[in-house]
Amino acid sequence: MEFSGRIEVHFTPAQVDELYLKDKVVVVVDVLRSSTTIAAALSSGAKEIIPVANVESAVKISGSLFGDVTLRGGERNGKTIEGFNLGNSPLEYTTPVVKGKSIIYLTSNGTPALVKGRYSKTLMVCGFVNITAVAAALRELNGDVVIICSGKDHHFCLEDAVCAGRLLAKLRKFVDNDLAIDDGGEASLVLDKAFGKNLLKTLKACDHGRFLTEIGYEEDLKFCAALDSLPVVPVFNGSTVRLAKETARQAVPALSK
Amino acid sequence: MEFSGRIEVHFTPAQVDELYLKDKVVVVVDVLRSSTTIAAALSSGAKEIIPVANVESAVKISGSLFGDVTLRGGERNGKTIEGFNLGNSPLEYTTPVVKGKSIIYLTSNGTPALVKGRYSKTLMVCGFVNITAVAAALRELNGDVVIICSGKDHHFCLEDAVCAGRLLAKLRKFVDNDLAIDDGGEASLVLDKAFGKNLLKTLKACDHGRFLTEIGYEEDLKFCAALDSLPVVPVFNGSTVRLAKETARQAVPALSK
Repeated sequence: MEFSGRIEVHFTPAQVDELYLKDKVVVVVDVLRSSTTIAAALSSGAKEIIPVANVESAVKISGSLFGDVTLRGGERNGKTIEGFNLGNSPLEYTTPVVKGKSIIYLTSNGTPALVKGRYSKTLMVCGFVNITAVAAALRELNGDVVIICSGKDHHFCLEDAVCAGRLLAKLRKFVDNDLAIDDGGEASLVLDKAFGKNLLKTLKACDHGRFLTEIGYEEDLKFCAALDSLPVVPVFNGSTVRLAKETARQAVPALSK
Repeated sequence: MEFSGRIEVHFTPAQVDELYLKDKVVVVVDVLRSSTTIAAALSSGAKEIIPVANVESAVKISGSLFGDVTLRGGERNGKTIEGFNLGNSPLEYTTPVVKGKSIIYLTSNGTPALVKGRYSKTLMVCGFVNITAVAAALRELNGDVVIICSGKDHHFCLEDAVCAGRLLAKLRKFVDNDLAIDDGGEASLVLDKAFGKNLLKTLKACDHGRFLTEIGYEEDLKFCAALDSLPVVPVFNGSTVRLAKETARQAVPALSK
């Protein structure tokens, strides 16, 4: 089966109704940093990521298991939340720390976008670190695809738009037929061409990257810019994010743009 | 005085809080078609445009004066509203029809964006038809500028993003100092470069343009693509949109991109 369908790109989740996503194939993009951190955690052997809407839910869900099989991770205003084991830097999610663990996960922009897609047919999490793996997985699916950029505080983020455009460009290379693409998709393709040549430079210059640099996370930008460094496909089933079956053994084509 | 300040571009009004706009200089862009239609109506001698939120308000405000000094104009789903004199095609707003009239105006995307800016310091309405006039007016102002694209049903519209980018590019030519531009602004500049060379082609190809063509308004696209054809500066004072003082006599520099 080969991909056919319409592709939409939305630059913030605010525009998208959750019932609109019902039965669609959804890709959530949050380059800085949820997508990258989720890919890192699962690559490091975390069992699952459990997105939650607020701190109270995080505490309630982790309950008595906290610190044993469960960790709390995420951020508010970019910084680690009080009482949480981990912040939102992908560099923290190493194998010794996360292997076998369930991670209760709360972030400002990435987790709300994930939760919005809970009625979708399939939801994949995409950053630059796993973009070719996600494109290869999308190729195997049929139906309309909605790519949702998480943005920052409901605002447009250049790095997410560029990532969405790169994903579209890769998918277009994979399939023979012309894709039906909306205004957001057409724009994202152009933004990838303009800003995607030097990803680290773009991440350093964009609004969100400058904010992260200011609060001490400049090292994260390098990690988030490392194209195809973590070739996994994180899939959200409506309650937890886990690796797609076969992801570990998936042959990821060594496509460069 | 020469322009200095930060410039933001938002791709839908949904992202923007109305109190955030308080005391800022705001430009509302709705190429298809509110911005163009407002510029057309005022160029044709309409006294003022009065944006309203719903049909009930339109009927209440026009009241017994309806048809005499007051007309009702606008659209729902692109089409003329029952009981209204005028739709939202700029071609309808000719001098014989609108001269001296107050136009109660209701549209799906443009008027909500206008109303959101009612606490701003200055709010100008911009389309391709009056873009150089608005850029010239902006040059005279100081302070932060927020450009709001109306979009369509809370979704990104390529034509508005291109118009925002063109406005920014013009402003940048006018002023000597480097402008501080956010992610949305950087993206819009690139989109103007990619899609702004042939405006009519872009308007015909974009999602909203194809919708208007389907429902019989293809002729409007030509009108909306006519760069600097109506060199006026419509200003919203929180209750009505009128021509800026001196607009009629304003020397609009014949800048091309």
